[in-house]
Amino acid sequence: MSFAHRHLLGIEQLSQSDITTLLDLADTYAERNRQPNKHSDALRGLTQINMFFENSTRTQASFEIAGKRLGADVMNMAMQASSIKKGETLIDTAMTLNAMHPDLLVVRHPQSGAVDLLAQKVNCAVLNAGDGRHEHPTQALLDALTIRRAKGRLHRLSIAICGDIAHSRVARSNILLLGKMENRIRLVGPPTLMPSQIDQFGVEVFDDMKKGLEGVDVVMMLRLQKERMDGGFIPSEREYYHRYGLDAEKLAHASPDAIVMHPGPMNRGVEIDGTLADDINRSVIQDQVEMGVAVRMAAMDLLARNHVAAQPSVA
Amino acid sequence: MSFAHRHLLGIEQLSQSDITTLLDLADTYAERNRQPNKHSDALRGLTQINMFFENSTRTQASFEIAGKRLGADVMNMAMQASSIKKGETLIDTAMTLNAMHPDLLVVRHPQSGAVDLLAQKVNCAVLNAGDGRHEHPTQALLDALTIRRAKGRLHRLSIAICGDIAHSRVARSNILLLGKMENRIRLVGPPTLMPSQIDQFGVEVFDDMKKGLEGVDVVMMLRLQKERMDGGFIPSEREYYHRYGLDAEKLAHASPDAIVMHPGPMNRGVEIDGTLADDINRSVIQDQVEMGVAVRMAAMDLLARNHVAAQPSVA
Amino acid sequence: MSFAHRHLLGIEQLSQSDITTLLDLADTYAERNRQPNKHSDALRGLTQINMFFENSTRTQASFEIAGKRLGADVMNMAMQASSIKKGETLIDTAMTLNAMHPDLLVVRHPQSGAVDLLAQKVNCAVLNAGDGRHEHPTQALLDALTIRRAKGRLHRLSIAICGDIAHSRVARSNILLLGKMENRIRLVGPPTLMPSQIDQFGVEVFDDMKKGLEGVDVVMMLRLQKERMDGGFIPSEREYYHRYGLDAEKLAHASPDAIVMHPGPMNRGVEIDGTLADDINRSVIQDQVEMGVAVRMAAMDLLARNHVAAQPSVA
Repeated sequence: MSFAHRHLLGIEQLSQSDITTLLDLADTYAERNRQPNKHSDALRGLTQINMFFENSTRTQASFEIAGKRLGADVMNMAMQASSIKKGETLIDTAMTLNAMHPDLLVVRHPQSGAVDLLAQKVNCAVLNAGDGRHEHPTQALLDALTIRRAKGRLHRLSIAICGDIAHSRVARSNILLLGKMENRIRLVGPPTLMPSQIDQFGVEVFDDMKKGLEGVDVVMMLRLQKERMDGGFIPSEREYYHRYGLDAEKLAHASPDAIVMHPGPMNRGVEIDGTLADDINRSVIQDQVEMGVAVRMAAMDLLARNHVAAQPSVA
Repeated sequence: MSFAHRHLLGIEQLSQSDITTLLDLADTYAERNRQPNKHSDALRGLTQINMFFENSTRTQASFEIAGKRLGADVMNMAMQASSIKKGETLIDTAMTLNAMHPDLLVVRHPQSGAVDLLAQKVNCAVLNAGDGRHEHPTQALLDALTIRRAKGRLHRLSIAICGDIAHSRVARSNILLLGKMENRIRLVGPPTLMPSQIDQFGVEVFDDMKKGLEGVDVVMMLRLQKERMDGGFIPSEREYYHRYGLDAEKLAHASPDAIVMHPGPMNRGVEIDGTLADDINRSVIQDQVEMGVAVRMAAMDLLARNHVAAQPSVA
Repeated sequence: MSFAHRHLLGIEQLSQSDITTLLDLADTYAERNRQPNKHSDALRGLTQINMFFENSTRTQASFEIAGKRLGADVMNMAMQASSIKKGETLIDTAMTLNAMHPDLLVVRHPQSGAVDLLAQKVNCAVLNAGDGRHEHPTQALLDALTIRRAKGRLHRLSIAICGDIAHSRVARSNILLLGKMENRIRLVGPPTLMPSQIDQFGVEVFDDMKKGLEGVDVVMMLRLQKERMDGGFIPSEREYYHRYGLDAEKLAHASPDAIVMHPGPMNRGVEIDGTLADDINRSVIQDQVEMGVAVRMAAMDLLARNHVAAQPSVA
């Protein structure tokens, strides 16, 4: 296995081969997680710290379970809103934790770029668990693993990413990953929720759901990020659902074996019809959560190996 | 040992034999917890998630210590009030956690029946840590173990449960358990704090403490659940203590070797006289806490064995 | 090794030999923490509970990492402000936890003396993680270890403790420890931030930073404890920095190889110039954090040995 990175900051830095290495290892963890004894000692003796400057029950839980299953000493830090007002404080906090010799630092932060900055200051491996509108690499990787397991491959697929693209780091990381793996990407949503510079991505853009979903293999819905819409256009939920919410009628335009995805937590009846979300013949939403733990185990395992190998050996 | 249940949702589903099996195992854990090395590997490799939708420092701590002592990977989920407004969200949250393959889910929820509903949706073993006014089975089991150790038996005892019966899931689970084990139960308290349909329980009801405590072997006080009294009668603390608070004078009517219990946290000088609560010749309140850890270890051990046995074996 | 204490409540109870024993063991943990596998089983099977009645992200994290690295089952209790209004409740909480048979209890409390009181009530080893204005023994020990490693000795040094002495338990514990180890101590700061009875400490007092720092080997800055200044003199930050903040100019009066310390978190530009704080030729602030984990590992290891030895042996 070859995965030569010190940190996992974004999909941007990963090659096709990196992605395949990571997903292959995650596949073995996914099988293992279905066995009664899910525990390994891959991270035994290592210290993992979760620093969430933004609340996220499910992502933090996923990283925590992943670390504990690998035998790491896992610690959650309650980072209060008050301690992040000055950029200076983020660095002081990071330096303090760094002095405690953690091996893995999992960081979520509301500001784009904050995790990259932090990674430059510490000696341990840093995993980006979401920074502002920038990247959320483990989400894109778990989506990729879910697609690969459901469709049997991760290339030459036609994939529609639908909804609030502009505010979504999930969309951004997915566009990067799915593009690197040579898929055809369509962005579907209201023009007001599209990023301003869209040409750089090499994607097709649709304003109309039915046209956007025509014949696609994968329908990836996004969460409406109301908390990140500052002052801009906020659609009414009813109107939004009517035009952009996924239901059986709109899905009928996609390929007959198209799968339905959502990163959660879902706003049922806003982004997606509840019955469709629960239809295990179409929806792989629970698989995404399951693959999340496996992908995080694989990422931490690979980074920890590099981190330990880089340290001076014990005589 | 025979304990054929998938979940521990309430005392209602347990037989006499189930209760005895569980208490016998808990007795061995109680002895073990007094040794310097209290750790076992009974749950090694398994994942326990504590989901507390209601705060409870002591019950959550008891389950957390129990799981860690058995070698489980234990995770506490901070379930915010905001995420439980819709019944739908509870199920989505449960399904999300379920996809992470926990083995044991410990749930406290303010709504009666919520834990049963959740248990129907997940693949893992569910332990009810208190749901609304419905059940709190581990509390009744720890009370039973405390009584059995103090009195040498758990049948044909005369037991007074005193105070705010109407709002108490502790009372409800205790009435069920102590009834199944063939004890005589008296409920003592103001008529306004008695449940409306009381005949079904096969108990005697007293409005007067001295008459209610006459000759009993066990005096079980309850906490005044002010937070659950919506709009109804709220007694003044002083008046309540005068009529229903346990003090030496009222206790003198009970059997000379009667024990005094309280599930905690106590309102000293409201439900019980502080000096009496601390009198180790009469009060077994600290024993109840001690037995709580042992009973939870036994319950999780038994459920985990069934859960693991039910999974497809690894080739 | 000889360390005959049941608790670590303050520096006051420690002898020179106790301090040396503890620092020697901490030195070995400090080296171990720099290795890839930092985990030991010194506390395996034991239960450590962190009870923080005052928030302290960094001190709690340090104790948590220390315990987990030693293999303890570590539990953090969220002690809410509401549950500490009555002194009675502190004891009830302590008795409840005590009944769960923890081995190590780490306690921070806003009231001076509260940790001593609690230690009298429980069967386990208690570590004071800071109580009011009284003591913070592990902070003084980590400062001592940092000084000993930087200067090669811990006696006959000239040490200036600067700033808000009056409100600082860190200053108090450091004065006790550094005095016991036969160093010359100077207290430097505005008279309004000096303790009222200062003669008892056998220290020199300076109002002027330049005079106070003249020729010293160690400059120990303190955090301005604004949250503890009730009604008294509160200096403006700008004026305070001008007169008492450490910068290169004031530091020039100290010995050319003097080291700079701060217990953190720093108010940059108030107590200390940010550039100086980051200057690894002078500042040992990150070393203090690193030594914090090592000192806490050593303290818990020594206390746990005594605690286990004092328990009835298993036949």
